[in-house]
This record gives sequence, C-alpha cells and structure tokens, in this order.
Amino acid sequence: MNSFDVIQKIKPIPDSSHDFYQKILRKIDLKTKPKGSLGMVEEIAIKMGLIQESLNPVIHNKRLFIFAGDHGITEEGVSAYPAEVTPQMVLNFLAGGAAINVFCRHEGIGIDVVDMGVNYDFSSQPGLIQKKVRKGTSNFLKKDAMSAEEANESIIKGMEVFEESYHNSPFELVGVGEMGIGNTTSASAIISAATGLSPKETTGRGTGINDICYQNKIEVINRSLRLRKANTNSGLDILTKFGGFEIGGIVGLCLAAAARRVPVVLDGLISTAGGLIAYMMSMDVKDYLFAGHKSIEIGQKAALKMMNLQPILDLGFRLGEGTGSALAMNIIDAACKIMREMASFEEAGVSQG
Amino acid sequence: MNSFDVIQKIKPIPDSSHDFYQKILRKIDLKTKPKGSLGMVEEIAIKMGLIQESLNPVIHNKRLFIFAGDHGITEEGVSAYPAEVTPQMVLNFLAGGAAINVFCRHEGIGIDVVDMGVNYDFSSQPGLIQKKVRKGTSNFLKKDAMSAEEANESIIKGMEVFEESYHNSPFELVGVGEMGIGNTTSASAIISAATGLSPKETTGRGTGINDICYQNKIEVINRSLRLRKANTNSGLDILTKFGGFEIGGIVGLCLAAAARRVPVVLDGLISTAGGLIAYMMSMDVKDYLFAGHKSIEIGQKAALKMMNLQPILDLGFRLGEGTGSALAMNIIDAACKIMREMASFEEAGVSQG
Repeated sequence: MNSFDVIQKIKPIPDSSHDFYQKILRKIDLKTKPKGSLGMVEEIAIKMGLIQESLNPVIHNKRLFIFAGDHGITEEGVSAYPAEVTPQMVLNFLAGGAAINVFCRHEGIGIDVVDMGVNYDFSSQPGLIQKKVRKGTSNFLKKDAMSAEEANESIIKGMEVFEESYHNSPFELVGVGEMGIGNTTSASAIISAATGLSPKETTGRGTGINDICYQNKIEVINRSLRLRKANTNSGLDILTKFGGFEIGGIVGLCLAAAARRVPVVLDGLISTAGGLIAYMMSMDVKDYLFAGHKSIEIGQKAALKMMNLQPILDLGFRLGEGTGSALAMNIIDAACKIMREMASFEEAGVSQG
Repeated sequence: MNSFDVIQKIKPIPDSSHDFYQKILRKIDLKTKPKGSLGMVEEIAIKMGLIQESLNPVIHNKRLFIFAGDHGITEEGVSAYPAEVTPQMVLNFLAGGAAINVFCRHEGIGIDVVDMGVNYDFSSQPGLIQKKVRKGTSNFLKKDAMSAEEANESIIKGMEVFEESYHNSPFELVGVGEMGIGNTTSASAIISAATGLSPKETTGRGTGINDICYQNKIEVINRSLRLRKANTNSGLDILTKFGGFEIGGIVGLCLAAAARRVPVVLDGLISTAGGLIAYMMSMDVKDYLFAGHKSIEIGQKAALKMMNLQPILDLGFRLGEGTGSALAMNIIDAACKIMREMASFEEAGVSQG
C-alpha cells in the first residue's frame, strides 16, 4: 500500500451549489416537520447522503478501532497514570471490560484493538490487530518522537487496518478511539504545531493532573516545540516530531476511509489530532469526518475549528477510547433513517406551514 | 385515581450525604477510567442507581408517550402552521411516519399517542390512547384555557396513561413528547407565570414564525398574563389559565412515574413546562426527571434552571414530539450499562493513577 495512491483517491463531496446537494435538501425539507427543526441531525443526514451519493443513506454495519501506543514523553511526568496502564488497558479492551466495550455492545458496533506501538508483547488473539511499529515513541523533549520512515509506516499500517477489516466485512461508518498514556501531551503538541497556537491554548489536564503537573506539561510542550523545529506545513513532519504511533494509525485510517467514501467519527483530543494531520495531507478528508464529541481538552476545539467541524455530543467526556464516537454513531445512524423512513407532507397528508 | 394520593407517594432520592449515594459513587470511581471522566454519563448513572435503589440499575423496557391537544390561542395567529396539523400529525404518528416514530424504532422504544384534547374524532386503533378532555382549550387571551375541573381531569388522565400502560407492560424509563399547534405559546405563558420572567425572556419562534408573528406572540402572552391573573404559586392554576390538555397529561404522567420511581425524560419547551408544573405540585418530582434535549426555545432554559436540570443533548432540535427524549434515552440506557458491565481496576488488573 502507498499513501500517495490512497490520497489521490480522496474526492470532495458536493457542496450546496451542486444539484445533488439541492436534491437532498429538498427531500429533507418535504418531510413532516418544520424546515431545519431537527438541527444537527439534518446536517448529518445531508452529509451522509452526499458521502454515499444517495437520497437514502444507510448504515448496515458500524465498526470502531482503538489504536494503542506508548509514549516516550511520559518520562517527563506529564501524566497522572504510569505508562504500564497502556498495555493493561489494551488487555481490558480485549476482555470487554472498558467503557468503550460497554458502549460498543450497547450500540451494536464491532470493535478491534490495534497495537500500533505498545511497550508489551501481546499474544495473538481475537479482536487484537498487530501493527506494532516500535515499543513506544522516543521522548520528544530529547529527540524526534519517531523517524520519518516510522511516521510513514504508522500511516500505512493504519490504512491497512481499514482495508483489511473493510474487505473482511464492509461497514458504512467507522469510529476511532485510542489508548496511550502520555498521548494528550503528544496531541496538544501536534495541534500547537499545526495551528500556531501556544501550548497554553492547546493543553489540558489529560486524565486529571494537578496544577504543578499541568504547568510542567505546558512547559515540556513549549520547549519541545522550540527544540524540534517541525515543518508546520507538513502533517508528516509534525507526526514525526511529536506523534504517536497510534496517532499515525488514525491518520492512515482517516485517509483510507475517505478514499473509500466511508465516514469516520472522531472522538476526543487525540483522535482529532490524528484527523487534523490527515486533513493537512489531504484537505478533502474533512468531508468524511464527523466530530463525535466535544472534549473538555481545549486543544480539540482549535483542531476542529481548522477543519470547520462541530461536535455532535457534549457530555463532558475526557476518557478517549472512542467513547464519544460510539455514542455519536447512534445519532448518525438515526439521521440516515430520517432520510429513509420519515414521511413527506404529501405522503402523510399533513398541511404545510 | 386521586392526585393527592399519588403526590403523597413521591419521595426524594438520597442526596450525596447518604451512605447509598457514597456507595454508588465508590463503585463508579473504582471503574477503569479516571474519576469523573465520563462526565454527564456518570451523573446519569448515579441518578439511575439512586432512583432504582440499586448499584446495578437496569432498563429492560423503554416507552414514550406523545400527548396531543389543540389550543384556542391559535386564533391569535401565534403559529406558522394551521390548527388542523395537530390531528394530521397524530395520524402521521399512528402510521409510523413522523420523526419520533423513526427515532423510537431506532432506539427500541415503545410508542403511544395520547389524545388529550385534539379537535378531531379519531377511530379507536392500536397505539392510540383516548383520554380526550375537550376538543381543544379556550383562547386564553379571552378566557381561561380550561376550567379548574378540566385541569384536574387532564392531570388524572395523564396519571391513568402511566398506570394503565405500566400495569400492562412495565418499563424502567419513560419519554414524553407532545403535539399541539399553538402549544409553544401556552408553554411560554406557563413558564413566564411560574418563573416571573417576562414573555420576552421565555418566548421563541416555535415552528418558525417571522418577526411580526413573533412580536405578536410576545404581546399575546403579555396581555394574557395580565388578564388571567394566575396564582403563580399554584401549578394547577397556571395550568388552568394557560394550559394545554396535553400539558396537563404530561404533568400527570410525571407525577405518576415519580410515585413509582420510574424516571421521565423530558423533551423540549412544552414537555419541560409540563415537568415544571409537576415540580410545583411536588418538588421531589425533579429527582425523577431528566432533561433530554436543550431546546432552542429560550423558555426551556428558565424552566430547567428552576428545577436544576441540565440537558443531555444539544442537537439544535425545535421539533418536539419527544425527538430529543428518544435519543437521550439511548444515553441513559448506556449509563446504566456502565454501572453494570464495566470492570473495576482490580477486576481488570489495571494500575490506578
């Protein structure tokens, strides 16, 4: 697989000046409700119709991938949890005991865990996709998080995750989640580099660090940004300097999904950072992205703004794993059904306003 | 049935000073996630545990009732739609073609329509519960919307709807929706009377009226408030002056559900006005209420503030019917499953922060 070929396949969806957009809008506007009264659900329905090039968008199967990886930056004391929690949580996902497992069972979403770079040797088992690049990134305060080759490899492997799963059993909607102690630090650095905002404006408290740790986290990102001198126009270089093998995996998944016209539901700060790098590699990717949940991490807002995406849910989550994606996928599914199942004024014999 | 007896049965749920509250909190805090990281879902899970007096709250069955009624106030040109749309939409609900039908099918929620006062003779049919008080309220700019006896009757009938359905097939969560052209005017008047806020602060554009209609709507409510002189400490009197038979039905449902410790999911402006009257009749009702969706109607915010309820969803809906309730019920169900199915740090062998 080659990321250039995949990117070439990504085409924008029609905008509101196109006939097909107007056709979809007309169909929604003739349904038995005041125009626009289903708010964001109507916007989602339109986007799904445009993506599937259909007046009757449909979701038969939903799938969610949790990309996991370890982070050298944890050496700098940026997290409230020890790094060993990354493999422990991967095992928890595989055993079905984490919040994301509960939500995916509840919403009828198939789930897989992708080892992109966890510092642990997992035995081969159902639900685990082995795509390890390396056992954790380097400490990006001291050197680049990964080599350019590794960054590219992580993206390719994310594409493979999509393609292999899709061929095995197709799905019309894919959610992304992640696990990686230290990865809010990585994501905030990525978003600062991409947006030009200071770390103060992109950094939150992750899993819940205290004031001293929080100041340290900002300072670590500040110094790293100066030291690494990323080419801020290059998503690949930003990933190299500050990633996240799991973030690279998410980048690849977003690109591969967009190339196949399958929409991706982002979750919180980290998956949004992945979506942002994919967007920098091909701006049309954003047409296939949904922001599942508003993070309380401030960096997410900046990244979403750059892509002009509005979060579907705002439940105060700061867990990651794909928890916000999973619940938002239910609403996207409902939006498709509005297009397919809801009666028009004429069909129902209801007078128009 | 007697509303006094029902109200007597409503007891508050334990607050955070109680042992059982602390027990629930401990259970959540030991689950494999940073404390509080599931935000509102954790608050919902706690509330469901307190309501069901269980560390393992469960929802086997969900039910939603659409209360329908006509409004004399439509004579004053307050709505973008003609009054005949109320019965037309009831028939649309019964045929399964409305947005709320799509959402209820999607979420596995049983649905019934209650005729509380529609200006139409429906034939008896499955899914329709006949509880008509009168064929529409009086124009409350000219006289009280209903008599005190009718107000009481509408509440009793709402209680009967709950009790009869519950006995027939029990459910652990109930959503409310409504249909009634003109009923945002009724609801805004109710909320102004109850909160003391001016109509400007409680009135929106309903199904989408223009500036002139909107100014007229505010003025109609203003004059009605002065003319009707409601006893603003009496929910029953406010209902009498400005209701809504369908709003009376919602009041009764909220009271009966709270008496049986079954939580109610409110929807937009109108159902929230119903919840508010129930709250005025028994403040403990609020312990059994969830605000399903933030309405773009400003009056809802004032009513929710009075009850200290935060909306679960904010998707820009302004449709009613129970559409916001239905989607929120999915999240309440998910929250219960977090309590039951999610592993603790110890069970999963995950290190704590």
